[in-house]
Amino acid sequence: MTQHPLDLATHLTPKGNGRLEGHTSPGYWNMMGPFGGTTAATLLRAALEAPQRLGDPVALTVNFCAPIAEGMFEIELIEARTNRSTQHWMIVMRQGDDMVATASAVFAVRRESWAHQPAALPKLPPAETLTPMDTVGRNAWLSRYEFRFAEGAIRFEPREDDKPDSAYSSLYVRDLPERELDFTALAALSDTFLVRIFQVLGKFLPAGTVSLTTYFHTDAAGLAAQGTKPLIGTADSKVFRQGYFDQTAELWGADGQLLATSVQTVYYKA
Amino acid sequence: MTQHPLDLATHLTPKGNGRLEGHTSPGYWNMMGPFGGTTAATLLRAALEAPQRLGDPVALTVNFCAPIAEGMFEIELIEARTNRSTQHWMIVMRQGDDMVATASAVFAVRRESWAHQPAALPKLPPAETLTPMDTVGRNAWLSRYEFRFAEGAIRFEPREDDKPDSAYSSLYVRDLPERELDFTALAALSDTFLVRIFQVLGKFLPAGTVSLTTYFHTDAAGLAAQGTKPLIGTADSKVFRQGYFDQTAELWGADGQLLATSVQTVYYKA
Repeated sequence: MTQHPLDLATHLTPKGNGRLEGHTSPGYWNMMGPFGGTTAATLLRAALEAPQRLGDPVALTVNFCAPIAEGMFEIELIEARTNRSTQHWMIVMRQGDDMVATASAVFAVRRESWAHQPAALPKLPPAETLTPMDTVGRNAWLSRYEFRFAEGAIRFEPREDDKPDSAYSSLYVRDLPERELDFTALAALSDTFLVRIFQVLGKFLPAGTVSLTTYFHTDAAGLAAQGTKPLIGTADSKVFRQGYFDQTAELWGADGQLLATSVQTVYYKA
Repeated sequence: MTQHPLDLATHLTPKGNGRLEGHTSPGYWNMMGPFGGTTAATLLRAALEAPQRLGDPVALTVNFCAPIAEGMFEIELIEARTNRSTQHWMIVMRQGDDMVATASAVFAVRRESWAHQPAALPKLPPAETLTPMDTVGRNAWLSRYEFRFAEGAIRFEPREDDKPDSAYSSLYVRDLPERELDFTALAALSDTFLVRIFQVLGKFLPAGTVSLTTYFHTDAAGLAAQGTKPLIGTADSKVFRQGYFDQTAELWGADGQLLATSVQTVYYKA
């Protein structure tokens, strides 16, 4: 069976002593480096595949320290602490002697418990009534996903009176080719929400995520149960100020379960 | 001049080679260890006081690995990467040989830019019309803050039909004694939102934050301009499932600026 491009892009070869080696993937190339979602997924996968791994990921924070060049990278996986039912990891990605990304991950053995979901599933028209975004000729990683926007598709047109557009988007999103949902895929999906400022101002400008935090709200079985169905996603921003803005996102299963939430802080020049 | 209790609680003595020493503070004691907000503020302060520090904090993630015992702790500050206008830190807190907390922080030189605040300032009645929460006889750290709830004060009563309460709260919050706002104070304030599950279920149960991420939305001058006025805070949760729930929070200045947003993931047993 041919490997899915995401599995190829996040593939790691253990080198012993918590060191692993990987390679950037042209299929997920972004403007100036790999799509941040694959970087996040690769860092998480280092911990997911550790022999001493305990439980499932609950929280992942990735700090993008420097542009990642095309080619090899090394990951150092540090087991900070393992308790009875939680495990803490520090993870560093290097190219040569330079740290290009740092991350932390919290894993936990999750057990059924009292459950309650105050958040409301966003209401979208059926996926098949929405046209997939045309990704031809754009950065490669965009063609690794199907985006069907219900609200807040990027509109590259000048705004009337320079009035900024809403930062809110809702859409269906899934891997292309279709892929069973797991933590690697969900970590990458949490970064598929296009940089809000492009949408708000209707133009490209220098911008890049500096930190991304994703929380996972179910276990491996809960993700596997989603199969390859598109997820429902929403994204929004609260404030753009002094060169940085925040971006929040939700990823929902077709069954109405909130599977992941994420926040990121993004540099911009405007 | 007497030091503010928060400055005492977060005081660090440099030991060379990026190592600093501190001590837990009885004034901010929580149920089983120090208030997580002081731990977050202490880890941030290590970077804030580094001689090679660049700019102001933009993002802070703290992972609470293990209970912190009363007494001394050591902090190791690792400068992961310094760019032209951003700086990345990894920070570890140890007691003896054990890592008890890990953190990462992103600093940046912030410059005036195009600014836009889509988020709406919560509408609360005037602070003086709201009664401060009675903190007498409760965990010490609660008396280090003034909480004036407009909505969602904790109500320790059985719920009718076991129907969970809303997880949303809005309130005025400030340091006691009053203290000029800075990053140390704001990092601690971002963890003052009581654990949502107590409010939702109306009872205490085993629960504790495992990871906390705070984004700062203004620079040092923007915080100093707030003086000692109470901040407006809101907190909410989206999903409680399999032993973990998320908690989101906003901290607003009296002038209507969103100063910080935070998320945390919290373990619970219910």
